[in-house]
Amino acid sequence: MAIKRIAILGTGLIGGSVGMALRQNGFTGTIFGWDREVVQAAIALARETITEIADDPIRAAQQSDVVLLSGPVFSILEWLEKLAPILRPDQLVTDVGSVKGILCERASGLYNQPDKAGFLPGHPMAGKEVSGAANADGSIFHGAVWLFTEGTKSAGMSAEARAKAEEWCEWVHRFGCRTIDLDPKRHDELCAWVSHLPQFVSTALSALLEERFRDDEDLRAIGGRALREMTRLGASPYSMWRDIAHTNEEAVAASLHALEQRLTHLRENLKSPALREEFDLANRFRLGRPKSIRPSKM
Amino acid sequence: MAIKRIAILGTGLIGGSVGMALRQNGFTGTIFGWDREVVQAAIALARETITEIADDPIRAAQQSDVVLLSGPVFSILEWLEKLAPILRPDQLVTDVGSVKGILCERASGLYNQPDKAGFLPGHPMAGKEVSGAANADGSIFHGAVWLFTEGTKSAGMSAEARAKAEEWCEWVHRFGCRTIDLDPKRHDELCAWVSHLPQFVSTALSALLEERFRDDEDLRAIGGRALREMTRLGASPYSMWRDIAHTNEEAVAASLHALEQRLTHLRENLKSPALREEFDLANRFRLGRPKSIRPSKM
Repeated sequence: MAIKRIAILGTGLIGGSVGMALRQNGFTGTIFGWDREVVQAAIALARETITEIADDPIRAAQQSDVVLLSGPVFSILEWLEKLAPILRPDQLVTDVGSVKGILCERASGLYNQPDKAGFLPGHPMAGKEVSGAANADGSIFHGAVWLFTEGTKSAGMSAEARAKAEEWCEWVHRFGCRTIDLDPKRHDELCAWVSHLPQFVSTALSALLEERFRDDEDLRAIGGRALREMTRLGASPYSMWRDIAHTNEEAVAASLHALEQRLTHLRENLKSPALREEFDLANRFRLGRPKSIRPSKM
Repeated sequence: MAIKRIAILGTGLIGGSVGMALRQNGFTGTIFGWDREVVQAAIALARETITEIADDPIRAAQQSDVVLLSGPVFSILEWLEKLAPILRPDQLVTDVGSVKGILCERASGLYNQPDKAGFLPGHPMAGKEVSGAANADGSIFHGAVWLFTEGTKSAGMSAEARAKAEEWCEWVHRFGCRTIDLDPKRHDELCAWVSHLPQFVSTALSALLEERFRDDEDLRAIGGRALREMTRLGASPYSMWRDIAHTNEEAVAASLHALEQRLTHLRENLKSPALREEFDLANRFRLGRPKSIRPSKM
């Protein structure tokens, strides 16, 4: 095995969960952990998601076979730039960033060149609405999809880095993930619909309810599973989502705009037969067919 | 105990679940079951949610201490009108209808008068996105809230009907429900926000995704928990929700309109500090406070 030392820069929820998944699935090498918040690295160590705290992230990166960048998109971007000049061609950088277009674009001259380290852009479709190493959980990847963009096929990657990229994919499979390769632009568009739009809808709905019903105990008391599910992501942290809003603005705005128009259409047709068409389409999305028409009268 | 015989008109998901909950919690009397779809009553009997099929719903109602109306709002409305002239003042009608204003209004002259049966309007905040007696489940009420409007206090109810209403509330508590009394208009407004709005948002989002990504396998493959939760209610049946859209149109339209405006605001501020305010409000709704500000950089 070519991967003996891994540096995780950013040992919060996802970085910590990756460390935990590595160890739970038999990785016995060194896992350096570093986080801008010292306490996150300390929690990660206490929970054994890393094997040692790296006081100096640069040195830890230089001493590792694989460097995993985990955190908000702009932080990953910064680390990509900072690490490029100091890593060797046999080393691999990979990440778990939520938006891939901007990262792949920025990395294109800095990685996967004859004298540069390899870069394998990745994105596990797993997470929680809570953050931090204390919530890390190696099992969140089980049954999830781990997306890669540009795959392991980048022409400029050294043979050594490529071997590490392939081995990294094997670890991801061991975590219980399916992997899919996507073009970065398509990745960002699909993620706008399946991940970013749900987040922003949940945030908007939660914010609206907070503003309107702040002190209304009945509202919270009577809300059932539907309300809980639709507002669960309202707990997500701004710091993470600000970067996504910035770096995938176009696709996110397009999906939000489409949903706004759809809600307007539905609202204007609450008493018209067009409502049935909306339910038929929605049923098809969830069930593969319109629901058999149940009698409207008992 | 005054309640020895109960007629459930509409033995689908909720009616069937009530029958099941009664029996699981020790009701040993007769439960007549009737459904417009004969097969639903047959399934309800086979699953022992009722003790006998009523071929004649009118006669079953006349022979029962309590008549439970379960189904779409307009069906309940129709049965309220049909049963009013043929029931005795010592009998109680109750229901599980999702909208209460129109039902309470229509019932006002027909029930709770000296020579009329009692009417106790009820609404369990429990359900599933699937329908039918085959999905009935007595445990769905556990931990839920069962709303009543006009409570058991209706001045015109006979002493006998009142005793049955109080006993019915005891059964509801035995199912594991908390009960809350609400004014019908307030009930409909709160339910528009916590139940109807989530449903219509989920329908609109599911319909949009179906139309746009029908044959895109990647979309479904990469969608995780966020997408599943936000579209789960897309499977809900039109027949049920058409009646809700009709009978609570004003409150539903107002909540949809407010959310449309909120989404527009969020979309126009994806790169502005106003986005933080939305996340802070949303965090407060879910966590009771804005999330501690995590560093934006690793």
